[in-house]
Amino acid sequence: MVYFLEVLRSKLSLNLWYFIFMEKKKKNPVTSIQVAKLANVSQSAVSRTFTAGASVAPATKARVLAAAKALGYRPNVIARSLISGQSKTVGLVVAYLENHFYPLMIQQLSHALQADGYHVLLFMAESGQQDAVIEQILQYQIDGVVLASVTLSSHIAEECANIGVPVVLFNRYVPDEVQASTVTSNNEAGGRLVAQRLVQAGHKRISFVAGNVNSSTNQDRERGFIASLNAEGIELWSTAIGKYRFLAAAEATREILAKKPYPDAIFVANDHMAFAVMDVIRDEYKLRIPEDIAVVGFDNVPESNWGAYSLTTVEQPLTEMVAATAEILLQQMKDKKVTPTHKVFDTQLIVRKSAEI
Amino acid sequence: MVYFLEVLRSKLSLNLWYFIFMEKKKKNPVTSIQVAKLANVSQSAVSRTFTAGASVAPATKARVLAAAKALGYRPNVIARSLISGQSKTVGLVVAYLENHFYPLMIQQLSHALQADGYHVLLFMAESGQQDAVIEQILQYQIDGVVLASVTLSSHIAEECANIGVPVVLFNRYVPDEVQASTVTSNNEAGGRLVAQRLVQAGHKRISFVAGNVNSSTNQDRERGFIASLNAEGIELWSTAIGKYRFLAAAEATREILAKKPYPDAIFVANDHMAFAVMDVIRDEYKLRIPEDIAVVGFDNVPESNWGAYSLTTVEQPLTEMVAATAEILLQQMKDKKVTPTHKVFDTQLIVRKSAEI
Repeated sequence: MVYFLEVLRSKLSLNLWYFIFMEKKKKNPVTSIQVAKLANVSQSAVSRTFTAGASVAPATKARVLAAAKALGYRPNVIARSLISGQSKTVGLVVAYLENHFYPLMIQQLSHALQADGYHVLLFMAESGQQDAVIEQILQYQIDGVVLASVTLSSHIAEECANIGVPVVLFNRYVPDEVQASTVTSNNEAGGRLVAQRLVQAGHKRISFVAGNVNSSTNQDRERGFIASLNAEGIELWSTAIGKYRFLAAAEATREILAKKPYPDAIFVANDHMAFAVMDVIRDEYKLRIPEDIAVVGFDNVPESNWGAYSLTTVEQPLTEMVAATAEILLQQMKDKKVTPTHKVFDTQLIVRKSAEI
Repeated sequence: MVYFLEVLRSKLSLNLWYFIFMEKKKKNPVTSIQVAKLANVSQSAVSRTFTAGASVAPATKARVLAAAKALGYRPNVIARSLISGQSKTVGLVVAYLENHFYPLMIQQLSHALQADGYHVLLFMAESGQQDAVIEQILQYQIDGVVLASVTLSSHIAEECANIGVPVVLFNRYVPDEVQASTVTSNNEAGGRLVAQRLVQAGHKRISFVAGNVNSSTNQDRERGFIASLNAEGIELWSTAIGKYRFLAAAEATREILAKKPYPDAIFVANDHMAFAVMDVIRDEYKLRIPEDIAVVGFDNVPESNWGAYSLTTVEQPLTEMVAATAEILLQQMKDKKVTPTHKVFDTQLIVRKSAEI
């Protein structure tokens, strides 16, 4: 009682009394105790029935659900999150959904987390806003964070680690000292592979359309590609920046084609830009793909298999990458311990009609 | 004090005392009062600084932010949600993100809600699972629900209305007696327009590839299309079901082209399927578009403007539809009052190369 009275005087209590007061005013405050009584089971059985992944006998579960329905009971995830310290939400920060790689990633990640009772709280953040957005996310007391197509600063990563919130960077990485896990494919090896195969197929004038030049994906693809070209004794023919955006990639293609002789092959840093590159080559310059210019992308999004593009591309194993992301998060959220983990997946070349290499 | 002691005995209090106990145990329980003291402002100024859209003088805000940073203060949205009854989250249920219409919708809706301090909690639900998913959503005590590409049952809609949670169906509608708002385009008028323009352009053998036959979008587009064809004295040449899926649409096209003479035009219930239809026509049957068969879609997703498809299509005004969805939600969440509201937007035909009509 002394402790209770002390709490009454604490700073927290005012808000909490107000909450209790409001809760009591609510029309329908059915509790798990009432459900347990009606179903003739323990309160713990009620709790387990409404906890994804918890063990409960099917017959018990059925009785609890029937009683809950009859009484209009609904477990309160938010109140439970205050008690358990788990909100059952994962914050997902993404810069844009224009490139179909990311909607697919969100769809698969949501399904993987839902199976474990977690949901995705979505935050759109342009590059440069991500720290402010993560500050917002932490206000929601989410259990984990995934950053897709955006990076983060070391001090925000440290803050997350300090409060036990695991962070996974998907398709990006950060310097080693930053407290975050990463899931990527081997972008540098992918870039090397494209260069080797283009050279082996006899291409001589090889150009590159870059994505976002600050992103680790673009830097790695470009580094591997150019290193491998140079090792074969070939200098890059020309290059322009497409920023991972459709219209910017079309403009980059016009820059490259402003100079003759044209390249005989273009490696584009992702598929989404490669479609724009192909449109400009065929529609504006009336050139044939692959006879006049071969085009190679990166990602293997579903559209690269559409008949009108049939894009040769480096596949990133999206499904495996998402599964690894979910696994790292779920493990670290369970352990409440942040251990930076790095997963790198192999890539492979998918040869279609845009470059027969 | 009598009230307090009564509460002590209430069923709620046990969990709450535990929460208070846990809160007091936390390492870093910086309160808004401490921030207010350091910044030399009122506690209300601290609260307003961390509330999106709240009015606070820039100089005050700067002082509060500096003090908050120095102390490591972070407002707790979850605790605040228990007090205010607002969680600042909107549940978004979506069936699939394969059709690019929905990723764009999510991106725009997130931005619109973020501007008002709300975030999107994402739920993937196949058709038929939506009621169970909404039950889950309500456990998160979200402030509003948006259903995109899925519908809901009247009893779930009523449950949401009873607890004051507004529901907006995006691109779907439900019978009038269901307590939900809807935002759609005039799909029936869109279907009529396509029929009229195809007939005016001289097409005689006109076929239809249906989407999900249970969806209101497909039913309305089909009804308008066929009614208008019949009014012109033309019977539908043939039809097949593509379920709004890419591969199913390719299969539907093969069904339609199994019978000669071929149609001279195909209306496809959405763009996403139309790309598959075009691939089959050109790649498998070596027919020309639009000379042999004209193709018309519905939505005007970005890919319909890609050079290799250049798809004539009925535009749904996505940006306006998302703005209306956000407006209805924000208003009703503010008023805490559910008033089913129905917005229907005009459509227009965007003529490109796939059908010069």
